[in-house]
Amino acid sequence: MDPLIALFTDFGTRDAYVAQMKGAILSICPQARLVDLNHETGQFDVRGAAYLLAASAAFLPAQTIVVAVVDPGVGSARRPVMLQTASAKWFVGPDNGLFTHVMDREGFQRAAVLDRPAYYRAEELSATFHGRDIFGPIAAHLAAGVDPEHLGSATAKLITLPLTSPRQAGRALLGEILHIDHFGNVVTNVTPALLDAWPKPPQAVCVHRGKTYAVQWVNTYAEGEPDALLGLLNSDQFFEFALARGSAQALLNAAVGNAIELRPE
Amino acid sequence: MDPLIALFTDFGTRDAYVAQMKGAILSICPQARLVDLNHETGQFDVRGAAYLLAASAAFLPAQTIVVAVVDPGVGSARRPVMLQTASAKWFVGPDNGLFTHVMDREGFQRAAVLDRPAYYRAEELSATFHGRDIFGPIAAHLAAGVDPEHLGSATAKLITLPLTSPRQAGRALLGEILHIDHFGNVVTNVTPALLDAWPKPPQAVCVHRGKTYAVQWVNTYAEGEPDALLGLLNSDQFFEFALARGSAQALLNAAVGNAIELRPE
Amino acid sequence: MDPLIALFTDFGTRDAYVAQMKGAILSICPQARLVDLNHETGQFDVRGAAYLLAASAAFLPAQTIVVAVVDPGVGSARRPVMLQTASAKWFVGPDNGLFTHVMDREGFQRAAVLDRPAYYRAEELSATFHGRDIFGPIAAHLAAGVDPEHLGSATAKLITLPLTSPRQAGRALLGEILHIDHFGNVVTNVTPALLDAWPKPPQAVCVHRGKTYAVQWVNTYAEGEPDALLGLLNSDQFFEFALARGSAQALLNAAVGNAIELRPE
Repeated sequence: MDPLIALFTDFGTRDAYVAQMKGAILSICPQARLVDLNHETGQFDVRGAAYLLAASAAFLPAQTIVVAVVDPGVGSARRPVMLQTASAKWFVGPDNGLFTHVMDREGFQRAAVLDRPAYYRAEELSATFHGRDIFGPIAAHLAAGVDPEHLGSATAKLITLPLTSPRQAGRALLGEILHIDHFGNVVTNVTPALLDAWPKPPQAVCVHRGKTYAVQWVNTYAEGEPDALLGLLNSDQFFEFALARGSAQALLNAAVGNAIELRPE
Repeated sequence: MDPLIALFTDFGTRDAYVAQMKGAILSICPQARLVDLNHETGQFDVRGAAYLLAASAAFLPAQTIVVAVVDPGVGSARRPVMLQTASAKWFVGPDNGLFTHVMDREGFQRAAVLDRPAYYRAEELSATFHGRDIFGPIAAHLAAGVDPEHLGSATAKLITLPLTSPRQAGRALLGEILHIDHFGNVVTNVTPALLDAWPKPPQAVCVHRGKTYAVQWVNTYAEGEPDALLGLLNSDQFFEFALARGSAQALLNAAVGNAIELRPE
Repeated sequence: MDPLIALFTDFGTRDAYVAQMKGAILSICPQARLVDLNHETGQFDVRGAAYLLAASAAFLPAQTIVVAVVDPGVGSARRPVMLQTASAKWFVGPDNGLFTHVMDREGFQRAAVLDRPAYYRAEELSATFHGRDIFGPIAAHLAAGVDPEHLGSATAKLITLPLTSPRQAGRALLGEILHIDHFGNVVTNVTPALLDAWPKPPQAVCVHRGKTYAVQWVNTYAEGEPDALLGLLNSDQFFEFALARGSAQALLNAAVGNAIELRPE
């Protein structure tokens, strides 16, 4: 079967960046099958992208090669790297913390610093576009069957972002907002394990930015009363706020990184 | 030839939903060739999506499998279904009216309720993301060659949305707005058959929200006078309003579902 | 290996246009591998698209077939054409100047007017959607192995847009803005050759719309001081203005086509 290369970037869809990276890959490995995962993660937002990347890659088959480029430090000393997870997927991109959640979810198998320019794009190397000139080409060589040992020098550890853990404090659960999706659903870092251990009150409220909102516990969006702020476990196994047909973000005036609290009414 | 799976959703392009559905499909049928049709149809807007889905799928080859997910009722009693059209295409998605225009354009061959969890995604089933956990996997099994009879139980009829028909009333044609495209072109439900039967006046006006606008009949956008409201048969065989280089939507202040009237000046 | 067809349009991603063009191609050449380059180039903006198309196609492998549709004159007398470049890529689209930069970068090998309706989409030809009805089908026949000589009649020359050249004037460099990317980076038409010939001042300013801004010369975004307007050679080998983590467009209030001047402080 032809190899799968999945693409995750903050390049947007209005410029030539995605096209050039695809071209660079296909020039080296014409049989690669390209799959667009996301090109609109927040630009320069490595923390937000790290969460989205792990969620986006979670269901891909083993052996998939993911090129992941959210790289505000391109051209600086940050290392270009590749990572093999315990789940046998490959990730190629900058060593700036972008793989924090991936390693957390899928396990670390091995990693390498991409220090072999022979496997970069053949022509002049740009200082500002390693997606096209390093990460894409390395992924393409990997897809074409080059031994991973040849593509870089082993490294024992990649950079990870410090993550704040959600926790129970008395009768309250304290967490923070990880992601807001395009429906306006507000995803928090509160996990099923934490929820299960907590004596969940039948009547609960959410406190956010000093304001208090009644929460309706549901299992699906369809169960929600119109206009009620819904609390549910989402499909990615995180606790999330939603409105049945509207934006919880707008209701809460929520932003990524904000603290949230759940407690009895 | 490797099977084609085409994707039509309201998942947007900023989140992990599209990526997860692609991953779930490729994990079951790694040889599937994925084609993105649309991920930005209006969220929760089953009526608008039903039109766009039929238009989007109209030119795909026979045997294509379309996963179509605009599903505000996910987790409720609405049935997960698959449909084979008389044109030998497959559609997999929620039974909420989304396939109304598809059946109208391509004919109904057979349908089934997806009541065989053995063919859902192997791990835990989420209550909120059937695109990844049911529709994508069923499409992947179909693409991988599983007998359609095994994937669900036959059903004689899918839900259809009530459609209002355009009609002639005296010397006027009455219709409604089906879709507004990103150029600002305003697509109505008025068909060539209706237009042909109507004694088309050389000087016509459009009445919309109580205001009257002169219409220039043209065959192509390029024929239009600058700033004139153009009336033409569009490439999808519906009557449409356009501006040569601008937005008819902005000029008319138009919205989907609005009534429009065409009559002699 | 299955043929590659790359797609570059201003169709946007909210309508059925991209889907219909893909369907029309796959109906003729089901084994084609489709690659999305860009569907969000500015609508009706042939000049801006001509630059983006050349940049987007630059790294694709030889033999790739690019369908390029930015076509405000659809249905008018403008000719439908195909172009083979000296770099052995194919381009199919309207003869309205869209291929100006492509020919400049990749060289002209041969071109043909698509005057053979037998190779258009089989059913009725729409007056307004040649992407689906002419350009996509011609690309698909080419991909399926039809002799290019059969698809149209040779033409010696395609339409090119007049391009203004950047130049040195005394101690200043005069150029114009070619493109603004989604990061807010402002790409000019100033080339490395011109920069190399210019006695570059250590302290330089940019003059734009009558205002003067200090410029920090850098090689990478990461070298930039916070809030400084950076000047660098970008990955596409044009001189560009950027902010380390912000929008140079917003700072400069820049627009495509504006004049810019670089000179000693």
